[in-house]
Amino acid sequence: MTRFGKYPQRSLRDLAEEAVSAALRDAGVDAAQVDAVFVSNSVAGIVTGQESVRGQTAVRGLGLMGKPIFNVENACASGSSAFYLARQGIRAGDFGTVLVLGVEKMAHPDRRITYRALESAADISDLGELGNAQGSIFMEIYAEKVKKYMKATGATQHDFAWLVVKNHEHAALNPVAQYRNHVTEEEVLQSGDVSWPLTRYMCSPIGDGAAALVLDAARESPRAVPVLGSAMSSGNPDADQGHHHPGVERAARAAYEQAGVAPADVDVAEVHDAAAPAELESYESLGFTAEGDGLRLVRERASMLGGTLPVNTSGGLVARGHPVGVTGLAQVVEIVEQLRGEAGERQVAGARIGLVQNAGGDIGGVSAASAVHVLGNRSERPRRRYPAAQRAGPSGPAPKGAESGR
Amino acid sequence: MTRFGKYPQRSLRDLAEEAVSAALRDAGVDAAQVDAVFVSNSVAGIVTGQESVRGQTAVRGLGLMGKPIFNVENACASGSSAFYLARQGIRAGDFGTVLVLGVEKMAHPDRRITYRALESAADISDLGELGNAQGSIFMEIYAEKVKKYMKATGATQHDFAWLVVKNHEHAALNPVAQYRNHVTEEEVLQSGDVSWPLTRYMCSPIGDGAAALVLDAARESPRAVPVLGSAMSSGNPDADQGHHHPGVERAARAAYEQAGVAPADVDVAEVHDAAAPAELESYESLGFTAEGDGLRLVRERASMLGGTLPVNTSGGLVARGHPVGVTGLAQVVEIVEQLRGEAGERQVAGARIGLVQNAGGDIGGVSAASAVHVLGNRSERPRRRYPAAQRAGPSGPAPKGAESGR
Repeated sequence: MTRFGKYPQRSLRDLAEEAVSAALRDAGVDAAQVDAVFVSNSVAGIVTGQESVRGQTAVRGLGLMGKPIFNVENACASGSSAFYLARQGIRAGDFGTVLVLGVEKMAHPDRRITYRALESAADISDLGELGNAQGSIFMEIYAEKVKKYMKATGATQHDFAWLVVKNHEHAALNPVAQYRNHVTEEEVLQSGDVSWPLTRYMCSPIGDGAAALVLDAARESPRAVPVLGSAMSSGNPDADQGHHHPGVERAARAAYEQAGVAPADVDVAEVHDAAAPAELESYESLGFTAEGDGLRLVRERASMLGGTLPVNTSGGLVARGHPVGVTGLAQVVEIVEQLRGEAGERQVAGARIGLVQNAGGDIGGVSAASAVHVLGNRSERPRRRYPAAQRAGPSGPAPKGAESGR
Repeated sequence: MTRFGKYPQRSLRDLAEEAVSAALRDAGVDAAQVDAVFVSNSVAGIVTGQESVRGQTAVRGLGLMGKPIFNVENACASGSSAFYLARQGIRAGDFGTVLVLGVEKMAHPDRRITYRALESAADISDLGELGNAQGSIFMEIYAEKVKKYMKATGATQHDFAWLVVKNHEHAALNPVAQYRNHVTEEEVLQSGDVSWPLTRYMCSPIGDGAAALVLDAARESPRAVPVLGSAMSSGNPDADQGHHHPGVERAARAAYEQAGVAPADVDVAEVHDAAAPAELESYESLGFTAEGDGLRLVRERASMLGGTLPVNTSGGLVARGHPVGVTGLAQVVEIVEQLRGEAGERQVAGARIGLVQNAGGDIGGVSAASAVHVLGNRSERPRRRYPAAQRAGPSGPAPKGAESGR
């Protein structure tokens, strides 16, 4: 993948070329050996004017033309949707080697155009009811849910701030992260309100980038990482209301079942922290802890590198960055590096099973699309039988504010 | 499917609901039995402002939320791409019952917005080179190729006009066609130049509509029509130049091979006549006749109802209409009706094998995406061994102008 960032001078094609070349080289695959290409992008239609054949225009000149090319979209879950369908093509026997590419340019000189593109990830017929929120609409919707979650669980703004501090610590070790600076809890809390309790640093930034993966039916390389399970779900606005995430739960259940692993087997996870509290909630939706108990993993520092279940070792959406159509693939890139033991200073020792959770869009107040993938080597380890909730304790000091019960 | 037409008062959701309800009813399937939904749309991002989660917004309220929903795009081949991927989901064993929906609203009160959406089906970085064609860019690109084809084969503007006359005759028998009027060759030739030799009636119109299909692994219904083969290809601007269509040929070869049928086995076909000459060229690309010999099928009237190989019995893109993201599915709807023997006055007697050819977008002067599907009952008939070129002769008088060699 490219480093995430703001690249006003680079085209989608240029970003795609960097990621595709790197992925093919890494896999030891020549472009001519690729049987099909799945491309995810979310906002080019509105931001760059390129609709309809975005994949073809992005990979043109890279030796991939003439092959089937599919353009896949699902807001912030576009990357996962492309990954899901690419794997499906291999499972169907239609393709032996598939390239998956996510590429996105979100930044536009006229910021209103970027906002309009982001708003189109909601059902635009809902926007009238919600007022014209001018870009922060997702965060406004989400802030309301977070308030309810805080009331129900006792989570505080300090807990969310700690997640941002943690993810910046991780991102500082990640050469492709958009923001590699360290931040303090105070800085997070004082970075400006987006919509209380969400501050600016708690929200994922706008950025550009590309990520590519090669999926191969033969898995001949010793560096190949098996995809054990992959599942998707859409939100159901009539049934899924509330602060829990049935869409994520549906996808997780199916992915765990396919993979034949339990939540307690997961060694490292990348989750969709489009805003910091979503990471905490995902601990529950993914079964890492019981419902309402995610806060304990935060206060025990379990999800920091060195903890019992490191989460978002890449820096997550808030620090590694979130070019919407690329995120789902960047998450897989991080898990692949972890499972290969190639994550350098971010390496989770002995990681064998990794999980990706990606979500996108809004339909009547619930995520429009949720995806969960499980990767790793199931057979090489005995399956753990104790629940995640019984994992060993804290590492690092308790967060400021936690003691006071705020 | 809905009737194609201009529906300024109907939303994408409203059009989707009509098609989805009809498809589920026809298949005898309840929405709750559907395992996944694939949705194709091409221009909603630009025309309606709804990007990113178009499928979710279109099927919301129809009992399908909570299931995996995939948004698929490939310009005018979006519908075929969704169909291809839906079938792949069944072949992979991921899903037992899949709903495929195409839904499109192209008409916008400001015609320039519709044009801009259509232009985005080309690589917009090419548009500078071609000048600002204001909406007819595809037809301008295409007219240049048609001139070369005419020079090489002796095809005349009258031949193209006859194809339009034929397709309007077919559309007049099709309750869901956008234009059900009869037209004469003179009317076609005098309908106004778009870009010589293409006149207005030779070009597919702007329209709205929706089409839906249910794919089922079990095929329990006696009315189920097996999909024997389905393949896609992208254009390769570096290798595919010229008036032939290697992209279509690649897809056709793969689809025939999967299906285990030869071009001569095809009884009825729907092909992508975005402009009338493309139908003639498809006869060659699909192997219905030898290269350069498509004209003979026109002058023999072979492709008219009652001929030896009726093509575009629906009326084709020029008369049934072409809401871009829906067309690939509307083509399958027609072939399904033909193979079920339910096409009424348009019925091709004894049709057992049907073919769909759909193409989309432009990348450096070649189609960005090509799709071919073969449907039918292979086992119930002996495979024909004679080439299509030897099919029995003409029906109806020769076209005006053909005699003069214009």
